[in-house]
Amino acid sequence: MTDLLEDDLGTWRRTHYSTNIDPSLRDQEVIVMGWVSSVRDHGNITFIALNDRFGHIQIALKKKNCPKDLLNKIEGVREHTSIAVKGKVKYEMKAPNSAEIIPLELKILSIAKKSSPFPIQSRQSVGIDTRLDLRAVDLRRPLLQSIFNIRYTVLNSCRDFLKEEGFLEVNTPKIIATATEGGATLFPIFYYNREAFMAQSPQLYKEQLTMAFENVFEIAPIFRAEPSRTNRHLSEAISIDVEKAFADYSDVTILLEKMIVYIINKIKENNKFHLNYLGATLPEVTMPIPRYQYSELVEMLQNAGESIEWGDDLAFQKLQKIQIKNMDSFYFIVDWPSAIKPFYVKPNPKQPRVCESFDLMFKSLEISSGSTRIKNKDELMDRMKQQGLKVEAFDSHLRIFDYGIPPHAGFGVGLERLMMSLCNVDNIRDATLYPRDIDRLTP
Amino acid sequence: MTDLLEDDLGTWRRTHYSTNIDPSLRDQEVIVMGWVSSVRDHGNITFIALNDRFGHIQIALKKKNCPKDLLNKIEGVREHTSIAVKGKVKYEMKAPNSAEIIPLELKILSIAKKSSPFPIQSRQSVGIDTRLDLRAVDLRRPLLQSIFNIRYTVLNSCRDFLKEEGFLEVNTPKIIATATEGGATLFPIFYYNREAFMAQSPQLYKEQLTMAFENVFEIAPIFRAEPSRTNRHLSEAISIDVEKAFADYSDVTILLEKMIVYIINKIKENNKFHLNYLGATLPEVTMPIPRYQYSELVEMLQNAGESIEWGDDLAFQKLQKIQIKNMDSFYFIVDWPSAIKPFYVKPNPKQPRVCESFDLMFKSLEISSGSTRIKNKDELMDRMKQQGLKVEAFDSHLRIFDYGIPPHAGFGVGLERLMMSLCNVDNIRDATLYPRDIDRLTP
Repeated sequence: MTDLLEDDLGTWRRTHYSTNIDPSLRDQEVIVMGWVSSVRDHGNITFIALNDRFGHIQIALKKKNCPKDLLNKIEGVREHTSIAVKGKVKYEMKAPNSAEIIPLELKILSIAKKSSPFPIQSRQSVGIDTRLDLRAVDLRRPLLQSIFNIRYTVLNSCRDFLKEEGFLEVNTPKIIATATEGGATLFPIFYYNREAFMAQSPQLYKEQLTMAFENVFEIAPIFRAEPSRTNRHLSEAISIDVEKAFADYSDVTILLEKMIVYIINKIKENNKFHLNYLGATLPEVTMPIPRYQYSELVEMLQNAGESIEWGDDLAFQKLQKIQIKNMDSFYFIVDWPSAIKPFYVKPNPKQPRVCESFDLMFKSLEISSGSTRIKNKDELMDRMKQQGLKVEAFDSHLRIFDYGIPPHAGFGVGLERLMMSLCNVDNIRDATLYPRDIDRLTP
Repeated sequence: MTDLLEDDLGTWRRTHYSTNIDPSLRDQEVIVMGWVSSVRDHGNITFIALNDRFGHIQIALKKKNCPKDLLNKIEGVREHTSIAVKGKVKYEMKAPNSAEIIPLELKILSIAKKSSPFPIQSRQSVGIDTRLDLRAVDLRRPLLQSIFNIRYTVLNSCRDFLKEEGFLEVNTPKIIATATEGGATLFPIFYYNREAFMAQSPQLYKEQLTMAFENVFEIAPIFRAEPSRTNRHLSEAISIDVEKAFADYSDVTILLEKMIVYIINKIKENNKFHLNYLGATLPEVTMPIPRYQYSELVEMLQNAGESIEWGDDLAFQKLQKIQIKNMDSFYFIVDWPSAIKPFYVKPNPKQPRVCESFDLMFKSLEISSGSTRIKNKDELMDRMKQQGLKVEAFDSHLRIFDYGIPPHAGFGVGLERLMMSLCNVDNIRDATLYPRDIDRLTP
């Protein structure tokens, strides 16, 4: 069989993607390439479904008029084989895009030696670990193809939106000397002859950069040593981090809701097919997204008989117990207790027990956290001390506060969690290509 | 002085950026915000240059008609102070954009307590370490503002180009179990209870992903424990990684040169001001970019009296010794010896001593490396063994080669090195916001 395998493409190059093949090309000669998602032998005719990056096309091989070497080669073609087909386009009402290809020549480019341990076409599949062990093959499934095509729209629309709003994209270091938000969840690195850490967040850097560029964003990995095994935590995730000068938390709350609406509209525009395949209905969002005070939710929880006190964190199990408008979609929880938010979050000057902060929630899932940041060095140092952090460790950060850092506010959005909320993904591991968690480090 | 400081923005919000202020707004009331790059007191009139993300604007304060509290506040304004100004636009031929602002009210938002240890306006500056210690302040210099605004154009145009070419943006893990290209330059991580590494490159992942998405790219950090102290190496850099299915190295060479031309044209379009400030002339690139065979350059070097043998790497010091056309701009070196390229690079089937590979050079700087990749599992394992790698360590990668991985080719571009070539940046540390090297881990 392997002697039928081509070592390279030779002079052949793809002329069309599957989705460009339609009846307007009737009788034209084309070259298509891709991988085989099914072979159906009907005796006198064999149908091959050939998938590529954008969709699939039907290859119809009629055995009667077929050159012998083509018939030979077709024996070597099975699910997952990569092939190139030169052929003529024919109108065929029942085929995808109402067109199929009658092959003239075929090249087998890469042979599938094994059968996949999971079905390609099914929405249901085997356990996630079996799939992750062969992730690249798993990603050929239309379900994941849909998720990651939508994910690309999210990334693109996010960047387009922030560009229009006057933001500059930056990249800050992922190797850092000091914990950004406390040291519990850091991965240590052996950095030349000393200890360093993988960045939990670009928080301090993006704040600094408002000095020079005012409005900055970064879309990059963050690393958290979370020893939990839930469907909503990853050890490595993508964070969309936004920071804006001359703004407070009310400004960036509005910026964030505009961004969410912008992204949802772009998905509607670009990913009808994928949404349809997923059976996902995008959340309906109207501006303004409802805002609930932290205090008001605590009271509601208390009235519902929950044992919670002002100052406690709002655990998602508890939130599920109260029914408020929009709790089945996006909503903000604002004005959190200062004590449970990070040191750089600005307490409300009139009522310092509460800080200028928000979380964007989707159902009981936290999608984003944001706040006004402290711009005054002494206040920042006080908050660090209150939270038991070593001020000296932040020396290289603190020193720039002597040079007129503007007032600023910002937020971070967890991309995988946003994807979960938009595409009905149950397990965060399917919102990332190669998940990392306490158990998994490969592939 | 601090009692003049505003705790927050109150109800003020910026109405215009500096570059939007022009004589068409004459007599209109505006609010501008930014940081002060100079204060010039001419006795009866004080000029403040106010910088923001896009440029700067002149504030002209005539002391005679000026409210007293405004005069008081102006005393607290010095270089680097962040302020907000409400005022009226006036035509002024000599001012930037032919307009200035006559202030009515002023808010001091953040005080500069110290003088910067380096001049803001000068192209020349103090040693790079002094600047890096206060990097966020350093980044206010127009020189670095220009570089990082051009960098944003490079990122944007790169993404636009690849989107148009049918590529999907992906994110692959930065925490990995196994060295991608040999183990010498890896940073070890303490990952829960075991050892892991920071990714040197997304090579193996992007190859795998051609199975599912065909054409993928990633723009993300890579990590190299290079103990060298040169002006062209970083321990953390941004890599533009591109991988294309059903393609070989000649296809992706053309893709890369089209991408370079596309980027240069976008910079010409968007960054006239920044190029002008930098005094940088963009390299002239006409397609095709010249290709030189590795063998042909070795011969030229030998003829020039250099002690080099076929099979040796081409050190940049040596390349400087030969004068060939386009050696002062971009050129490709193609068809390298198989033995000095990584295991995944495909040897030429007709002449396996040579592999299907290229480097894109700018002068003596390597900007990119690319190749056709091996798609056959047995061949890949043989190459691993030849290069002394443990085949077992690559198990989770190798297993997907049993499922019809398409022929593929790709390249990686070092973003900071590309920036050096486009903007005449001498030290790679100024092509990144917060450089990481053997000596530097902060800020």
